[in-house]
Amino acid sequence: MSEPNASATASLAEEAAKLDAADELSAKRADFILDDTVYLDGNSLGALPAAVPARLADVVAREWGRLRIRSWGESGWWTAPERIGDRVGRLVGAAPGQVVVGDSTSVNVFKALVGAIRIAQGQSAGRDVARDEILVDESTFPTDGYIAESAARMTGCALRPVPAAEMAAAVGPRTAVALVNHVDYRTGRLHDLPGITAAGHAAGALVVWDLCHSAGALPVGLDEHGVDLAVGCTYKYLNGGPGSPAYLYVAREHQPRFDSPLPGWNSHADPFGMAPAYVPADGALRGRVGTPDILSMLALEAALDVWDGVSTAAVRAKSLALTDFFLRCVGAYVPAGRVESLTPAAHGERGSQVALRCADAGEVMAELIRRGVVGDFRHPDVLRFGFTPLYTGFADTERAARVLAAVLAGAPGEVA
Amino acid sequence: MSEPNASATASLAEEAAKLDAADELSAKRADFILDDTVYLDGNSLGALPAAVPARLADVVAREWGRLRIRSWGESGWWTAPERIGDRVGRLVGAAPGQVVVGDSTSVNVFKALVGAIRIAQGQSAGRDVARDEILVDESTFPTDGYIAESAARMTGCALRPVPAAEMAAAVGPRTAVALVNHVDYRTGRLHDLPGITAAGHAAGALVVWDLCHSAGALPVGLDEHGVDLAVGCTYKYLNGGPGSPAYLYVAREHQPRFDSPLPGWNSHADPFGMAPAYVPADGALRGRVGTPDILSMLALEAALDVWDGVSTAAVRAKSLALTDFFLRCVGAYVPAGRVESLTPAAHGERGSQVALRCADAGEVMAELIRRGVVGDFRHPDVLRFGFTPLYTGFADTERAARVLAAVLAGAPGEVA
Repeated sequence: MSEPNASATASLAEEAAKLDAADELSAKRADFILDDTVYLDGNSLGALPAAVPARLADVVAREWGRLRIRSWGESGWWTAPERIGDRVGRLVGAAPGQVVVGDSTSVNVFKALVGAIRIAQGQSAGRDVARDEILVDESTFPTDGYIAESAARMTGCALRPVPAAEMAAAVGPRTAVALVNHVDYRTGRLHDLPGITAAGHAAGALVVWDLCHSAGALPVGLDEHGVDLAVGCTYKYLNGGPGSPAYLYVAREHQPRFDSPLPGWNSHADPFGMAPAYVPADGALRGRVGTPDILSMLALEAALDVWDGVSTAAVRAKSLALTDFFLRCVGAYVPAGRVESLTPAAHGERGSQVALRCADAGEVMAELIRRGVVGDFRHPDVLRFGFTPLYTGFADTERAARVLAAVLAGAPGEVA
Repeated sequence: MSEPNASATASLAEEAAKLDAADELSAKRADFILDDTVYLDGNSLGALPAAVPARLADVVAREWGRLRIRSWGESGWWTAPERIGDRVGRLVGAAPGQVVVGDSTSVNVFKALVGAIRIAQGQSAGRDVARDEILVDESTFPTDGYIAESAARMTGCALRPVPAAEMAAAVGPRTAVALVNHVDYRTGRLHDLPGITAAGHAAGALVVWDLCHSAGALPVGLDEHGVDLAVGCTYKYLNGGPGSPAYLYVAREHQPRFDSPLPGWNSHADPFGMAPAYVPADGALRGRVGTPDILSMLALEAALDVWDGVSTAAVRAKSLALTDFFLRCVGAYVPAGRVESLTPAAHGERGSQVALRCADAGEVMAELIRRGVVGDFRHPDVLRFGFTPLYTGFADTERAARVLAAVLAGAPGEVA
């Protein structure tokens, strides 16, 4: 195989420069710590926002080191989960008071599912048919499936995996809750949140959405589409840092009946009353559990500053332009048949990543990383490239496709 | 009321100076960021270890900012929960491979209780009498009771609160598990870990210990006393920082049957295989759930360096000397009857805090804090003073009692 021909390269590189020059989000790059690599793994771990190091140093040295215990009140530690939850909420279309940050995504899936089952069963009390079924999209990120299996076992429900494309048709009179990933972690396929949610409601079920691969990459519209509950992580497109706390959305209408399986003291109506009987707090903070992880949470809060003044519509427009452009560059540079895109061509079905099926994907990705293009590999044969509109440009995108073509052509390594 | 007389003060201050001069742990103070206040709230939030700020800055700037996704492997992020777990393990008498760090204490109580119930019921399969009872010490920190209630509800068990002093006698043929706080958060009473554990085993039950107020303050001896499972936080005597991750101990003998109610992908035998079926990992990491909170976890790891070369026996000896000395100073300075110690006089029943019942405790503590002595207040009438042997000295202790006496005497404020 040959390398991409020079005229195609020159033409696309020129187009990339024009697109970058016209990009209204390009100034946001300065808000991140970047380097010479093309970082296309922000769908796994977002890059470091420039404001985080100084803010975290202040949290450690002053709030913890000097104020110590007083910071729970004076530095706003105690209320951080709901305060930061509201900021995440804005990015996923949730009005204030419905999102709390804390715990891992897995733990939040457990809260959301058991909570949803209890609400659905409560709504169906007295019916002839039991609501004793949990549906999960069968290509789910694994942890959702494992946790759903545990939730099913502990609530006496059955778990039934269903392809996401068939989810709307599969919900039925026995369905208590359907758990769906908004964007498939492997293929980058965007699932139909409004349609599946409406179908779930029509069947009397609740729908829980996992937003890990959509929040910060595209508008979600939780309130607009009447979503019941949702969870997501904050370390991908929200750039909160490694293992930063996840979040739980409980729609306002469900909050009075949200009955958490993890009723820790932080969700008590009077947490410092230290009463032996549990009385849940009102509102989103009913989803809290134990003492929040302050260092990680306040790093996340600082990271969210990059979203000030950013509309998710603009992010979505750039995301689609980036993935379109990447697919075009790959089409121009990589010999036909050498890779196959698993990511849908239709915009309405695409998240913010491109997944390419490729023989020797593990070795190819290792070589890409050596040459300064960082994506990731998903067993057994998938190259994943995540496009983070706040800090990825079109020149980066062209270069990634060019280096990919060179690697696939077996050309000597050269970091462009 | 009068202030303490000058000769008593001079005599105890002199004794404090001698005790500090002879204290083999006194050099450890230099490992912490301290100031002019007497900080006796390390049983709520430990002081900042001096090594943490630089380490955390490096984690943020280099590991996250520069290495980004590579740090999961190259910087040892992925294995942090079990690596740091082993370091916590040494401090609570657990051989390596039995402790993982992650999640909050509340979430770990849920894992431990449900896991213990399943093991106990498995061991009793085929018996006539069901093991369907959870005992909890009735003065427990509230979150343990709330979570125990949820665990009971979700496993079909009954929850029965029992005074810790009667726990050994209360375990019976129906008991699946007893949940006991090693040290009572309010009174500072140390409960009988070896005796209650042995009584539980004699009845065929498991015992889960909450070590929040003992780990880092006294030897726990988990392996030595045959403890089944245990949980604890790391932000009190272990100084891990606000909301730093908690830990879960599962004794080696129980690990093959530990069946977590929160089987997240981090506890899978092959987490990156992304298999739809859950297969638990062997060993302690079966207690992991979702992606670990790296910033908080690595701050904790740096904080644990202060324990290098420290024996928990030495810590315990100093802890008892401090609390003894505080009680003596209070006895000498505070008029009889003005406060009442809730903390047992017997060393074998005392943790590392002194709790004084006092009228107007809320106002008294607020004034103490204004005068530079930081303890805390527990509703409705308790002053808590935590003694952290690594950074609290005898002169601090004498001063705290002296300021307390002055506050109680209504004398004009003067920070000594």
